[in-house]
Amino acid sequence: MGQALSLFESNKDEDVRMSRALIDCFSENKTSKRIAITGVPGAGKSTFIEALGEKLCNEGHKVAVLAIDPSSQKTGGAILGDKTRMEKLSRNPNAFIRPSSAGNVLGGIAKNTYQSILLCEAAGFDIILIETVGVGQSETIVQHMADFFLLLMLAGAGDELQGIKRGIMELADFVFINKAEEHNLVKAKEAMRQYKQALHLFQAKESSWKVKVEIGSALENTGLDLVWNGIKHFYKITSDNNYLSQYRQNQSIALFEYFLQEHILQDLETNKSFQSKKAKSRKGIISGNKNPFDEAKDLSQLWIKKT
Amino acid sequence: MGQALSLFESNKDEDVRMSRALIDCFSENKTSKRIAITGVPGAGKSTFIEALGEKLCNEGHKVAVLAIDPSSQKTGGAILGDKTRMEKLSRNPNAFIRPSSAGNVLGGIAKNTYQSILLCEAAGFDIILIETVGVGQSETIVQHMADFFLLLMLAGAGDELQGIKRGIMELADFVFINKAEEHNLVKAKEAMRQYKQALHLFQAKESSWKVKVEIGSALENTGLDLVWNGIKHFYKITSDNNYLSQYRQNQSIALFEYFLQEHILQDLETNKSFQSKKAKSRKGIISGNKNPFDEAKDLSQLWIKKT
Repeated sequence: MGQALSLFESNKDEDVRMSRALIDCFSENKTSKRIAITGVPGAGKSTFIEALGEKLCNEGHKVAVLAIDPSSQKTGGAILGDKTRMEKLSRNPNAFIRPSSAGNVLGGIAKNTYQSILLCEAAGFDIILIETVGVGQSETIVQHMADFFLLLMLAGAGDELQGIKRGIMELADFVFINKAEEHNLVKAKEAMRQYKQALHLFQAKESSWKVKVEIGSALENTGLDLVWNGIKHFYKITSDNNYLSQYRQNQSIALFEYFLQEHILQDLETNKSFQSKKAKSRKGIISGNKNPFDEAKDLSQLWIKKT
Repeated sequence: MGQALSLFESNKDEDVRMSRALIDCFSENKTSKRIAITGVPGAGKSTFIEALGEKLCNEGHKVAVLAIDPSSQKTGGAILGDKTRMEKLSRNPNAFIRPSSAGNVLGGIAKNTYQSILLCEAAGFDIILIETVGVGQSETIVQHMADFFLLLMLAGAGDELQGIKRGIMELADFVFINKAEEHNLVKAKEAMRQYKQALHLFQAKESSWKVKVEIGSALENTGLDLVWNGIKHFYKITSDNNYLSQYRQNQSIALFEYFLQEHILQDLETNKSFQSKKAKSRKGIISGNKNPFDEAKDLSQLWIKKT
């Protein structure tokens, strides 16, 4: 699996051909569940994913854990890249853990994550947990890949305090208030009440699914049943009303549009002649002689084929 | 002014040439203040802008009011497009009010707003108020155009309740809690306390400017001095430390990059041959035979000139 994924992440033509051939060997596993799990650092994502992953593996599922963390490249801190983080789960024969997806740019990360999902499904993993860091960018991409969005929160802090972007709250299908251990129970219940109230302000989901808020503790293995039952319930509802298949189709189209833009812009970024003309434009703009809009217009027209 | 702006908004080659010639006649007015004013519907933006605009005109300033509202195209509701909204201000000889910038796409709106700013400055307006609706998209663009971000809020509702995106709170240089009339004063003061607290959580601004929170009532003409003094203070600090000129340079470059992407993607969207190939790709993806990533890659490579 690891080798196959490295192949996908390569930019060499030969590797790209091989990775295409590889994925063509398998047909997509349409019955897999793609679950995005997000939450700020400190929300206990690793502990939660390990506990949930263990539970599911023990029930006979094959669980793949993928991680997206665009910031880890910049900060040098491999906060999601550390496999030993989920030591117990990584030793489970039914689990596959992939550290933070490589790539310097978000587009590369998106591509690698998407190919990883397809490959894991092809290899028989029926549950894909996709971990993100809750800063906005990665969730924008993951919403085109995951069926279900699980948001981990903490008791005792409003979402301002937790640095969760408002848009992410809107994506959530399930809010799990983690670390609701004995000493924290009153706060956790109060947080549950507040989140339920806040969720009332959002529009109803197209999926007809009603967002759930529950409390529990991954550390003490409480509340995980609530989450898993919620997930199963979500798939039951969205399969019955045909939402899921339509949703995945829409996701594929959205990904296509996203990757198309990425490719076009990236092709230009790696074009030396384009870059040198662009540098000239930038100079003119900085000196104050040139208008950014006109420069952009003139430059763009040189590069797009008209037929 | 109105005619000149229409020229800018035109897509005809001839008009574009004329508008370029027109803007070349003037040199940019580097001493103008570009102030973005945002807030959700109901925060009293119109009343506030009219009151502030009147005040500034009476002090001898020339004030231009521009509006950005991408949603007005969709909903058909010209919530910002109604000139009669600011009837008093629009009769002031020192004021110029431009209704919501035309354009079906955000890129077009951005272009028109930017050209309007340049034109207004060239025509001697020293204060440009740019009104947005606080939904996120338009603020992303305006942050590349405005020097100062003023956020209007209401007392008695958390920002969740007001539907302000968290990212906008982070942009704010000044939070003005409007409608702080007598019956609402206690609530307004409590809101001020909360916002001040919340702002502590954000990183310090690069400009060295410390975000201010004040209360007042545009309706009763209270608190506007606090806002205007704040704005002047901001310009004093950021001129003294050279932040402003560097910031405007960075903005121009960011706008250039933004417009460049817009142009390239738009050129492709209007290319029939590209569109027909794209439609074919979409079909393949929907039928499940094609992978969005590979389709995007193949399609992009047909259109970019290599030299």
